[in-house]
Amino acid sequence: MGSERIVTAAQLVIGDEILSGRTKDRNIGTLAEHLTNIGIRLKEVRIVPDEEIEICSAVNALRERYDYLFTTGGIGPTHDDITAESIAKALGVPIAIDPRAEKMMREHYAKRGLGMTPARLRMARIPAGASLVPNILSGAPGFRIGNIIVMAGVPEIMSAMLAAVTPELKTGDKLLSVTIAVERPESEVADILAAHQQRYRDVAMGSYPKLRDGKPVADLVLRCADSARLAEAAEALKSALDL
Amino acid sequence: MGSERIVTAAQLVIGDEILSGRTKDRNIGTLAEHLTNIGIRLKEVRIVPDEEIEICSAVNALRERYDYLFTTGGIGPTHDDITAESIAKALGVPIAIDPRAEKMMREHYAKRGLGMTPARLRMARIPAGASLVPNILSGAPGFRIGNIIVMAGVPEIMSAMLAAVTPELKTGDKLLSVTIAVERPESEVADILAAHQQRYRDVAMGSYPKLRDGKPVADLVLRCADSARLAEAAEALKSALDL
Repeated sequence: MGSERIVTAAQLVIGDEILSGRTKDRNIGTLAEHLTNIGIRLKEVRIVPDEEIEICSAVNALRERYDYLFTTGGIGPTHDDITAESIAKALGVPIAIDPRAEKMMREHYAKRGLGMTPARLRMARIPAGASLVPNILSGAPGFRIGNIIVMAGVPEIMSAMLAAVTPELKTGDKLLSVTIAVERPESEVADILAAHQQRYRDVAMGSYPKLRDGKPVADLVLRCADSARLAEAAEALKSALDL
Repeated sequence: MGSERIVTAAQLVIGDEILSGRTKDRNIGTLAEHLTNIGIRLKEVRIVPDEEIEICSAVNALRERYDYLFTTGGIGPTHDDITAESIAKALGVPIAIDPRAEKMMREHYAKRGLGMTPARLRMARIPAGASLVPNILSGAPGFRIGNIIVMAGVPEIMSAMLAAVTPELKTGDKLLSVTIAVERPESEVADILAAHQQRYRDVAMGSYPKLRDGKPVADLVLRCADSARLAEAAEALKSALDL
């Protein structure tokens, strides 16, 4: 086992509609799964309202602490979309219409017989120094500035932007996992699992209870970046559980 | 219009499985919708891993800032369930087997032909000074200490605990909302909406774009605690949009 290369990330979800319960967020699950698959560890998520002071404060706390910060939401054409302005403010950089973004959008709209409007042009406002993240679905780009990647809130557009930015991301060792399903309440396997965790301290072990047809069952999940070590721990746990 | 009575809350979701993407959280949407319905404003959500230092730090930041802090996850019987211990540590209070919790659990198990075990008894560990939140589904209670309400992560159990604690909560004016669906991209109504927001500064207005059969449409949402004022603003916006 060599030393692990660990790359971390946080996500900031921006939007009153998530906090009111009106819209059920889907971007957290999508980003979490994607980052795990490519070898980036999502360590923290925050959801804040469409308020500049809250966005700035969360952006600065998270970008300093993790290798990457992904934001979702608040980059549309309406007055309540204040993510780009807030990030510029958090970083202390100017923001203005970006000629590259405007060109990208005009080309996208032209193919669809749409024109540029003042409201659409608002989506070309990008903080100085950012690179653009293309949006094949609706034209207006996301952007990347420093270690912050700014994406749309509409799940389909967010996914397209995430796919576009992925090749540029630095990744680390993937945290591999094995799931062992047990058809018993987790309380009946807790002692075995705890003893096993003591024996394999380098393999993170968790128990995820759920109700299946109203009966408590559990998934035991083992996680480790070393596949051989993970397999060994998983086999040993199955034996200990008589599975 | 009298002055508004505003009650705020934050949610802390605790669990590696959410951050790995293995489990898709459903408790944020449930809590957000419920709190909106009863007149509590959810202002911030954080998701942190099963690590004591992260839990303590988030608990202390959030409990001080909002009227209530709801936590979900990490109160099961296995070694990775460290929410109760972490909250005791954050508050600087001792934690031990709570006789009321143990009794509640023994009665629940007895009815189902189950016995108490050391792992199950671990779920009776409750910080000193807490009141219990009953769990009609699987017996082991949540708890409330100060302004912190600690609930399970399994969505069905979380919902049962939330229903149990709701009558005890102080609530404020409900933020009422009206949704106006427009069959156009939000960029085409952005200017009208922004002008309308300027005219009704006391009514919060948001635009929530989505793709319907691949075409961009939007829901315009107006929010205000005063129903007459909200209705007036909504009617005026419909007129401005020729709806």
